[in-house]
Amino acid sequence: MQIIEAKGTPNGRRVRIFLAEKGIAVPAVNIDLRAGENLTAEHRARNPFGRIPVLELDDGTCIAESVAICRYFEEIQPNPPLFGTDAKSRAIVEMWNRRAELNFLMPGAQAFRNITGFFKDREKISAEWGAISEEAAAEVLPIFDDVLAHSRFLAGDAFSIADITLGVALDFFQAVKLQLPFDLPNVTRYRAELAARPSWAAR
Amino acid sequence: MQIIEAKGTPNGRRVRIFLAEKGIAVPAVNIDLRAGENLTAEHRARNPFGRIPVLELDDGTCIAESVAICRYFEEIQPNPPLFGTDAKSRAIVEMWNRRAELNFLMPGAQAFRNITGFFKDREKISAEWGAISEEAAAEVLPIFDDVLAHSRFLAGDAFSIADITLGVALDFFQAVKLQLPFDLPNVTRYRAELAARPSWAAR
Repeated sequence: MQIIEAKGTPNGRRVRIFLAEKGIAVPAVNIDLRAGENLTAEHRARNPFGRIPVLELDDGTCIAESVAICRYFEEIQPNPPLFGTDAKSRAIVEMWNRRAELNFLMPGAQAFRNITGFFKDREKISAEWGAISEEAAAEVLPIFDDVLAHSRFLAGDAFSIADITLGVALDFFQAVKLQLPFDLPNVTRYRAELAARPSWAAR
Repeated sequence: MQIIEAKGTPNGRRVRIFLAEKGIAVPAVNIDLRAGENLTAEHRARNPFGRIPVLELDDGTCIAESVAICRYFEEIQPNPPLFGTDAKSRAIVEMWNRRAELNFLMPGAQAFRNITGFFKDREKISAEWGAISEEAAAEVLPIFDDVLAHSRFLAGDAFSIADITLGVALDFFQAVKLQLPFDLPNVTRYRAELAARPSWAAR
């Protein structure tokens, strides 16, 4: 078993933190996105969409998509549970993970790619959409802040994959200097708590 | 228990088809997105992000996000399984559901919203991004076609939530006349098979 990943990417880090929380060690192969190593025939045989990370199982099966990789490890090692523990809590974790991903990570990532043109050698970009997306990510952050005023973690008292998604997105967007209200009080309290977890050192 | 939904929306239909596959009946309340009924204080109390569908449980808990709602029902009624049956198949279903959603449904939805301005009374749009997104959705469909050349369904021999996501997206994008290569041979075979399922009549 090995993971093909790219250091410094939010999706690679999501899996790294998840594995650290579980205490699972998996050998990793680092590829260089800027050099297009994810677009080679070799990598497309693992993932036709050319994305990372990819978990390659010993039988040759390749599992792409960070949340799918995390779910695989949740299934083979349920403790500590990071996807919830019963029907309701699993649905709530899924809801919050999707909200963090679709409503915040996605617009922020589109802002980053369209404002900076980081991948403009391989994708069309729109500065206009970059600005719209940055504003969308900024507008939604207070909703997360409101929830975190009354809840230790996104999905309640227990740390979950939803916190990995939101926390990694926040760290990444601050590193690449998106203009977002990072100083919201409950978001600030929450990020300090995430940063204190040993898993958070994963890069 | 009730579902707050909006007829004609892809995410509402994803849940409807999922429930039909499971043979579960849940009362539904239809709200009017064009009239902004999802943006009222009443609906934002259910879902601060103002989106549909939302599953309201008898204890008052509101579960938003179509896939989270589906997962709730998968947990309380595992058969027929629509999220896989073991660690590997669950990861593979999650991977394909995410690929269908993130790589096809999302760019197609962004194309629809930015080209038509369907929600321009409440969101900023970019015609430039609409065109880029339509092209992105068109470019990725042949990858799905390639997989469907060798596989009955997206995640293998068994119908899963990933097929609901891809099939509903295809139906919606054709209805709103996105310019996509709908006539790819394996996609065509696959869509005929989906359309023959009793659940597919759900709207």
